Amino acid sequence: MSPVALDVNQNRTTVTLSEYVFRRILSLSVHSIFGVPGDFNLSFLECLMKLNEAKGSPLDELHWYGTCNELNGAYATDGYARTTGKLGVLVTTMGVGELSAINGISGSFAEYVPILHIVGTTPTTAKGRGLANHHLVTNISPLEKTDHYVYQRMAESVSCRVESIVDPADAPNQIDDLIATILTEKKPGYLYIPCNLATLPVDASNLISRQGMSFYERSPVGSREKIEEITDLILEKVYEASRPCIIADGLVDRFGLTKDLRRLVSISNLPNSNTPMGKSLLNELGDYYVGDFIGDESAKQTASYVRACDLLLHFGNFDNETNSGHFSTHKGFEEDSGKTLILLNPRYIKVGSRLFNGYSVEDVLPLLLSRINTDRLPVVAKPNISAEIENIPSCTPISETDILELLKETLRDGDTLVVETGSLLYGMADVRLPDGCKMISQPFYLSIGMGLPCSFGASIAKRELGDKGRLILVEGDGAAQMTIQELSNYNREGLNPLILVLNNEGYTVERAIKGPTREYNDIRPNWKWTQILDSFGVKNKSRRVDELEDLKTAMEEFGDDSSCARLIEIGLDKLDVPWRFNCMLGGYE
Amino acid sequence: MSPVALDVNQNRTTVTLSEYVFRRILSLSVHSIFGVPGDFNLSFLECLMKLNEAKGSPLDELHWYGTCNELNGAYATDGYARTTGKLGVLVTTMGVGELSAINGISGSFAEYVPILHIVGTTPTTAKGRGLANHHLVTNISPLEKTDHYVYQRMAESVSCRVESIVDPADAPNQIDDLIATILTEKKPGYLYIPCNLATLPVDASNLISRQGMSFYERSPVGSREKIEEITDLILEKVYEASRPCIIADGLVDRFGLTKDLRRLVSISNLPNSNTPMGKSLLNELGDYYVGDFIGDESAKQTASYVRACDLLLHFGNFDNETNSGHFSTHKGFEEDSGKTLILLNPRYIKVGSRLFNGYSVEDVLPLLLSRINTDRLPVVAKPNISAEIENIPSCTPISETDILELLKETLRDGDTLVVETGSLLYGMADVRLPDGCKMISQPFYLSIGMGLPCSFGASIAKRELGDKGRLILVEGDGAAQMTIQELSNYNREGLNPLILVLNNEGYTVERAIKGPTREYNDIRPNWKWTQILDSFGVKNKSRRVDELEDLKTAMEEFGDDSSCARLIEIGLDKLDVPWRFNCMLGGYE
Repeated sequence: MSPVALDVNQNRTTVTLSEYVFRRILSLSVHSIFGVPGDFNLSFLECLMKLNEAKGSPLDELHWYGTCNELNGAYATDGYARTTGKLGVLVTTMGVGELSAINGISGSFAEYVPILHIVGTTPTTAKGRGLANHHLVTNISPLEKTDHYVYQRMAESVSCRVESIVDPADAPNQIDDLIATILTEKKPGYLYIPCNLATLPVDASNLISRQGMSFYERSPVGSREKIEEITDLILEKVYEASRPCIIADGLVDRFGLTKDLRRLVSISNLPNSNTPMGKSLLNELGDYYVGDFIGDESAKQTASYVRACDLLLHFGNFDNETNSGHFSTHKGFEEDSGKTLILLNPRYIKVGSRLFNGYSVEDVLPLLLSRINTDRLPVVAKPNISAEIENIPSCTPISETDILELLKETLRDGDTLVVETGSLLYGMADVRLPDGCKMISQPFYLSIGMGLPCSFGASIAKRELGDKGRLILVEGDGAAQMTIQELSNYNREGLNPLILVLNNEGYTVERAIKGPTREYNDIRPNWKWTQILDSFGVKNKSRRVDELEDLKTAMEEFGDDSSCARLIEIGLDKLDVPWRFNCMLGGYE
Repeated sequence: MSPVALDVNQNRTTVTLSEYVFRRILSLSVHSIFGVPGDFNLSFLECLMKLNEAKGSPLDELHWYGTCNELNGAYATDGYARTTGKLGVLVTTMGVGELSAINGISGSFAEYVPILHIVGTTPTTAKGRGLANHHLVTNISPLEKTDHYVYQRMAESVSCRVESIVDPADAPNQIDDLIATILTEKKPGYLYIPCNLATLPVDASNLISRQGMSFYERSPVGSREKIEEITDLILEKVYEASRPCIIADGLVDRFGLTKDLRRLVSISNLPNSNTPMGKSLLNELGDYYVGDFIGDESAKQTASYVRACDLLLHFGNFDNETNSGHFSTHKGFEEDSGKTLILLNPRYIKVGSRLFNGYSVEDVLPLLLSRINTDRLPVVAKPNISAEIENIPSCTPISETDILELLKETLRDGDTLVVETGSLLYGMADVRLPDGCKMISQPFYLSIGMGLPCSFGASIAKRELGDKGRLILVEGDGAAQMTIQELSNYNREGLNPLILVLNNEGYTVERAIKGPTREYNDIRPNWKWTQILDSFGVKNKSRRVDELEDLKTAMEEFGDDSSCARLIEIGLDKLDVPWRFNCMLGGYE
């Protein structure tokens, strides 16, 4: 899948700036872009439409998906990128659009999701004269000129690189270097295109000389000898250990290493575990899977097992508060513990006390696979860790624990499960997902409302990939209402999600922290969730359930019905949470 | 209306930091605050609830209004501040919340609306250690500490001041100085409160020594003599003129000068006009009203009249692109024109070529009123400018011109009319509003989606002010879908808006600029607008109309029915716009 960026036989030496961008995007095998139109990006979008129409142009494979607002657009783009492993592309307009999206971009930055955010801006002429154009904020001294770069400086805080086109002659290299940085860092980057430059010609030669798929490739960082030395050092430590454990963390997924790591697990027969951000990366039903590991906030048997190991191989580690059981993942593996901790990060490798800064798991993991001598690995007994979910009774007939059990029973290979930030997310560590079921959530940045538009982007991605598996969205009412209008985007052929709305009348996560019955944790009452899809023009089946049997029946009836969108509203108690949520709160400050 | 900040007889020398903030807010006669809970602001909000409950506490007069998301919260706060002329207060949580709101804050910054944005943040302990707490973005180098101030730097670009509490001992002065700056600049400011400080004691003495209402007062800038000199210079110019014209612009409203300016108009019998940002400030049915003035984009008769004047008194001028007919307001009044242009701005006064930088219309206008000798004013004939609306026929039975006519006929004293950014907004310049009808819009920043939550904030403000007039919201479908969930907040006693949804199947403003039939200007089809309020749990009457007679009937039936929310969906052609919109596009770049 590597479409030619420019047909060589076209003999074109220039294309418009916009065409350059779209051809470059398509050359990266990205077929879907998201966003909201605005006057400063219309010339840019118009170019796509014209290219779409042109006979024989491959650009008809690049599709525009307008979202209801820009924040939803950013979330959808994030979902697309997480699902495909490719670049996500978002288009907004200066100020009003880009700032509406910035919280979504910040979340992508926090969780290593590569997004190209293209912003159409005021014309260069107005910029130079400092005119007070609309969508801008004027200088606080009204006699001073207006700064047209004010929003770009804000974007710098949540992006790996910002490129602003000033001279079309520089644009091709600026665009390519920006995309290269985004795909190296797995972080969002911004491309600012003044509206008067969008249709100007730029040199097209990069499109031929630099093939799109090469942007996903990388050269090793550091010398081959050093990388081999590090690999061998790690292998020796593993051979010496009596019970090593492999931990798969979020950056394994983001840096495209899941397949390699699964192979390592499969040939090594070593105990292994996913973290919250690594959820669903390793097969959770595998013989050597020990349960999800979150340090102190793991299930007891899992914590005991992992902490009794003498070596941790922590791949793609992301040591933040919520992903590490409040920084307790490595407890017992301190440098003076006599045990060995190996961190395999994309930016450094650490073996015990030895830090190899700048070296990357991206280079070491393939070498581990090729150099490992499985005969020298310790033979470890199958861990046999219980996968029971601790039941927390609720005041209502259905509890969140029941929903966890239901997910455990009904999920299957091919499903993409989007779990919105909320109390249930914390319980997901108890649900051993079937192999081939991918879970998407935002366990570190935790921006509620993200899940719903993210699931739309994930749906588009699945369709683009030809993935026939189900898209299942689980989210609370408090989060759902934040971004609810994006459900209307499911009014498209072949996107038929299954949506579980957990109606617990407000922000249960917050209730558990403070103010269980306070009005500030309420949302507006009396939403008619089962009417919502219909109001938004989406063909659907919707049902409210308050009894467990009804929930099961609804899941049976709706679960495999791909004829339309299905929504099950589940009545829950305001204060019901999985046991793990309370456990997590113990570490709360 | 000046509640005592702290009951002196309570003999309390300290209060908690949160209580300080809430008492200060209430002392400013602000009774409503908006926002969304999040873990870092729960201690702060909890304090309000406890104060609300405490027997005999005046804090029960300070009400919390949770919004569906933070952007909507920012828009609602803006609507509250615009309606009351008081401080708007928004509460969010670090990162995910504050960034979601930042586009709304930027709009308030752009259009001079004073907002106190309170953000609950990570505890000081975590800040000091640079921990990777949730809701944050980690350093791009994973071995570096996490910067807990990253979002504050972003906020600096769209606020007049940022205060971050570090030591509770400094908090009272920080808070007071911040609020003073916000109310002086009429711009948003940020108050960052670490969650572990929210309940610590602070010195309460400011609450007694500094009365709340004093924050709205100001001392003159510059010497009395100089201000008198400027005033007399202006008056001499006016006396010398044969046909002066008064222009009321947006900053007249924002700096609280409307009443004074109306008095000047009423005693002087001088021709006068409102700009788009000054819409509804001067009585548009007055004898000397010459129509709305927008430079080249005015109605022809109005432009001719104003440009035939020999002196312009432009009060509260805000010379930005959209408010000035693409910078043409002062055309013909250049320094070498032989005519006189007088700009009365809150930050400078300019009389012809003489600039008095730093002097304020706030000081000059009251003096103008007290020193004016009406006998020396030129006597000007009544202008008698046509108030006809140029009719643009549409492909559908109802046109946007029809809606303008309908508004002209049905609006009345006491109405608050919120007009969302969109094609119809440009036509409003043709609608002479009845005296006492206040119009709210966002003509410079133009962030679509703002109108709907803004109208909610305006509704709360009206209820708080005891204003029984109607709240009428007019907006297009493209804007409405962006923030639609906030309609659910109308599920409250006594808030019964009249909502006109202009259904033209997408972004008509953008269609008129580029891509009239392009899909990027479509929104998702088949929304059932007349079901929406019901889905959100709001008692309502909703109706779709496609014929003018039906629209009139619906307005008759719904217009004065304050028993519930009413929504009229009006079917319009995709490309129908008022003549003024096309006129505005002529100056488009």
